[in-house]
Amino acid sequence: MKNKDISHFTYVRIARVIEQQILNGTLRTGDKLPSLRTICREYGVSQNTALSAYYYLENKLLITPRPQSGYYVCYSRTRIPAIPDASNPSAVPNYGDTKFLVRSVQNTMSDTELLPLSLSAPVNELLPIAKLNKGLIQASRDLKGSGVAYDRVEGNERLRRQIARWAFAMECNLSYQDIIITGGCLNALSFCLMATTQKGNTIAMESPVSYGMLQLAQALGVKVLELPTHPVTGVDLNALEEAMKTGRINACLLVANFGNPLGSCMPDENKRIAVQLAEKYNIPLIENDLNGDVYFGQQRPKSCKTYDESGIVLWCGSVSKTLAPGYRVGWTAPGKFKDRVQNIKIAHCLASTSITQEVIAGFLETGRYENHLRKLRHVLHGNALKYAGVVANHFPEGTMATRPQGGFVLWVELPVGIDTAELYKSAIARRLSFAPGRIFTLQNQYNNCMRLNYGLTWNDTLQSQLIALGNLAKTKVRSLGIPV
Amino acid sequence: MKNKDISHFTYVRIARVIEQQILNGTLRTGDKLPSLRTICREYGVSQNTALSAYYYLENKLLITPRPQSGYYVCYSRTRIPAIPDASNPSAVPNYGDTKFLVRSVQNTMSDTELLPLSLSAPVNELLPIAKLNKGLIQASRDLKGSGVAYDRVEGNERLRRQIARWAFAMECNLSYQDIIITGGCLNALSFCLMATTQKGNTIAMESPVSYGMLQLAQALGVKVLELPTHPVTGVDLNALEEAMKTGRINACLLVANFGNPLGSCMPDENKRIAVQLAEKYNIPLIENDLNGDVYFGQQRPKSCKTYDESGIVLWCGSVSKTLAPGYRVGWTAPGKFKDRVQNIKIAHCLASTSITQEVIAGFLETGRYENHLRKLRHVLHGNALKYAGVVANHFPEGTMATRPQGGFVLWVELPVGIDTAELYKSAIARRLSFAPGRIFTLQNQYNNCMRLNYGLTWNDTLQSQLIALGNLAKTKVRSLGIPV
Repeated sequence: MKNKDISHFTYVRIARVIEQQILNGTLRTGDKLPSLRTICREYGVSQNTALSAYYYLENKLLITPRPQSGYYVCYSRTRIPAIPDASNPSAVPNYGDTKFLVRSVQNTMSDTELLPLSLSAPVNELLPIAKLNKGLIQASRDLKGSGVAYDRVEGNERLRRQIARWAFAMECNLSYQDIIITGGCLNALSFCLMATTQKGNTIAMESPVSYGMLQLAQALGVKVLELPTHPVTGVDLNALEEAMKTGRINACLLVANFGNPLGSCMPDENKRIAVQLAEKYNIPLIENDLNGDVYFGQQRPKSCKTYDESGIVLWCGSVSKTLAPGYRVGWTAPGKFKDRVQNIKIAHCLASTSITQEVIAGFLETGRYENHLRKLRHVLHGNALKYAGVVANHFPEGTMATRPQGGFVLWVELPVGIDTAELYKSAIARRLSFAPGRIFTLQNQYNNCMRLNYGLTWNDTLQSQLIALGNLAKTKVRSLGIPV
Repeated sequence: MKNKDISHFTYVRIARVIEQQILNGTLRTGDKLPSLRTICREYGVSQNTALSAYYYLENKLLITPRPQSGYYVCYSRTRIPAIPDASNPSAVPNYGDTKFLVRSVQNTMSDTELLPLSLSAPVNELLPIAKLNKGLIQASRDLKGSGVAYDRVEGNERLRRQIARWAFAMECNLSYQDIIITGGCLNALSFCLMATTQKGNTIAMESPVSYGMLQLAQALGVKVLELPTHPVTGVDLNALEEAMKTGRINACLLVANFGNPLGSCMPDENKRIAVQLAEKYNIPLIENDLNGDVYFGQQRPKSCKTYDESGIVLWCGSVSKTLAPGYRVGWTAPGKFKDRVQNIKIAHCLASTSITQEVIAGFLETGRYENHLRKLRHVLHGNALKYAGVVANHFPEGTMATRPQGGFVLWVELPVGIDTAELYKSAIARRLSFAPGRIFTLQNQYNNCMRLNYGLTWNDTLQSQLIALGNLAKTKVRSLGIPV
């Protein structure tokens, strides 16, 4: 279950040579690439391998085929939107109420005629449904009582062993006994927050942050301190330490890997420091690692849990974003809070659904999960680059966008003055969708931002919807007379 | 989905004639019954029908076959244990801690070598596993995306329609839009309590009460006021009104039908009054109706929700006790608290497992659920009577027991002086099990009581274990020199 390095594949090696030539300017936009036949001859490879190399580059938006002519370089440095600055939220903790707007966005979940651009999850076509169905039948045969009986409180042992094995790949030393299965990652976070905070407490989170986290905090009656966060390197450690040192927070909830909506990834060193701080100030660090497996780089990034020696980190994950949202299978390794989390699970729901846990255990055990992830990452990375291309070419001048290193979402910052909550209404009226920036904070900010889900299948409809969205924003810019 | 009255079956009519003769003394213990051939001739029925009638009576412990001889009356009025008095808990609300004992009982859940006498749920053999597996395959075909995608927050619409239809049979006027699906009944109760109370509040419950409810209250930081409860008619309405009138409680949580552990059933008139009181004093009434379908009488008892006109009743149920514990499918119709409960569900887990909901929807829709319930009720009723017989014949003199009108458990009151927490240790050492009375309260009471699960398959092993338990108790009585 190691994170497969694809760099030893011949097609990847060939592609990377060409990629390097494009990036260093040896090959320039518009240049014609060698024919497939030439590649075959020069590298001594099959036609298939040559095609794979070009497909790889095409997916990265570096080259494009022209009918009856061959492949051409289409990369242009200037066509990638600039990255937004680090966020700068107010340092005053808030109770908040974003119910109305959030509800209207969540309702688009069940509107099947709308492309789910407002969400943060892959569409069904990107999920291995047929294989999961086979797994379901297998599980109903393998599992004693076919999953009709109550599961243990901690969850399916086979699944917990697989999760521990999986975590080992990022140097996280867990045993199955450290893990408790939950009804999805959100449910794990809910239990962990209940175990570490109480009403009236304050928790620190990145800003902007997924509205699901804000809703959970609100439901538990805890205040949220939003921390400055950089789109590439994640949470600002100085701000985190300041909050811990002054005793202003009772817990922190971080998405170290591919935060939602920024897609940032804390460098490993930052993770180590964050854990040290948590230990030093004895502040529980709840880690939402649900996107960690959806990385676009060479290997899975480590988690904060990797650096946890004292049990201060409550690591949470799930397969809801990568494999089977509707199965509701998540987990937590809550460190020294395990007994507390387990008692909370007993009290609130006793056990998780038996059969879906067994299906996921099988998927992990046989390597089908890793196979699926490899394909999924490739598609998502390609999509992220294609989205960035559309933003660069079709959104108002000056629009910035993140460069996600993993996950499902692109964060787009439109020129100041555009109100994306307003734009959202116009978009929905045109059957377009996105998530307005305002719902990712309890403060009055990110009003000119939007989050776009690229966990979709790239096709003409999607492309034209994104372009239409850009045009709509441009119209707004013009009508408002915003200087660009 | 009407509650089938079986009284029109010929075999039942014949059985009832004989039952009447036994109960009014026309036929007495030891009397030989007419041969099957005689029954066939006298009533003009098939051999099969005659056998069914005798089987019915045998299951009620009224008659018994003797090999090579025929059927004999074995009923004896004196062999039924007396019913315990109504409970009389202290009127001081408590925060409590029964963790240690409860955990040791819950651990017996996963000890597969122990008969699960300590639980309150049917064993796998009593559940229609093969049919559920067929349903699972069907659901993976029928459900869009095979249940891999997120379900709506409220839950599967088909299932909600079926639950509303089912509720109609007890004159509960619900629409599918009134219902929210949850991960089991406990999860529904958890959401409803979160929606109606906060830390430091007090809720009223029956006493004794299922330890699951006590754990939930403890996890939420709410105090519990235990109300006097009668083994036949349920909670004491005067005590309930007193608690409401004096403003000492913020919500009440009642099991109107077949409370656990007493098996009591509030008369319909009492339910009506309880709802009136809740309305008058504006105290939310959370109704745990998870056993309502497991009735031994002619028809399903009504629920408090039946009498709810203002939306003050939060009705909760599930199929966890009757069909598929491991599916984690429960629901609530939370009346005027629906929005609040829905927001809590969004915040804590977003959605429930998709595929298992669809399987249950199919079971309800096709009538398979009602078919299954009919058999289950028959088995359970027979078991309850057989357990009572063992208690009367093999437990210490003066032992009392409830006469459950539904549900899964018998509450046994041993002579005062026996400590069932002590007895529990001796029992476990002998590979016997039960749930000690002390865990059904936050006060120091019910120390001489035990709860026995009769959701098992009656056979020689079960019978001899129950007898062994009785003998163990007798030994204890003798060793303590308790006068009987």
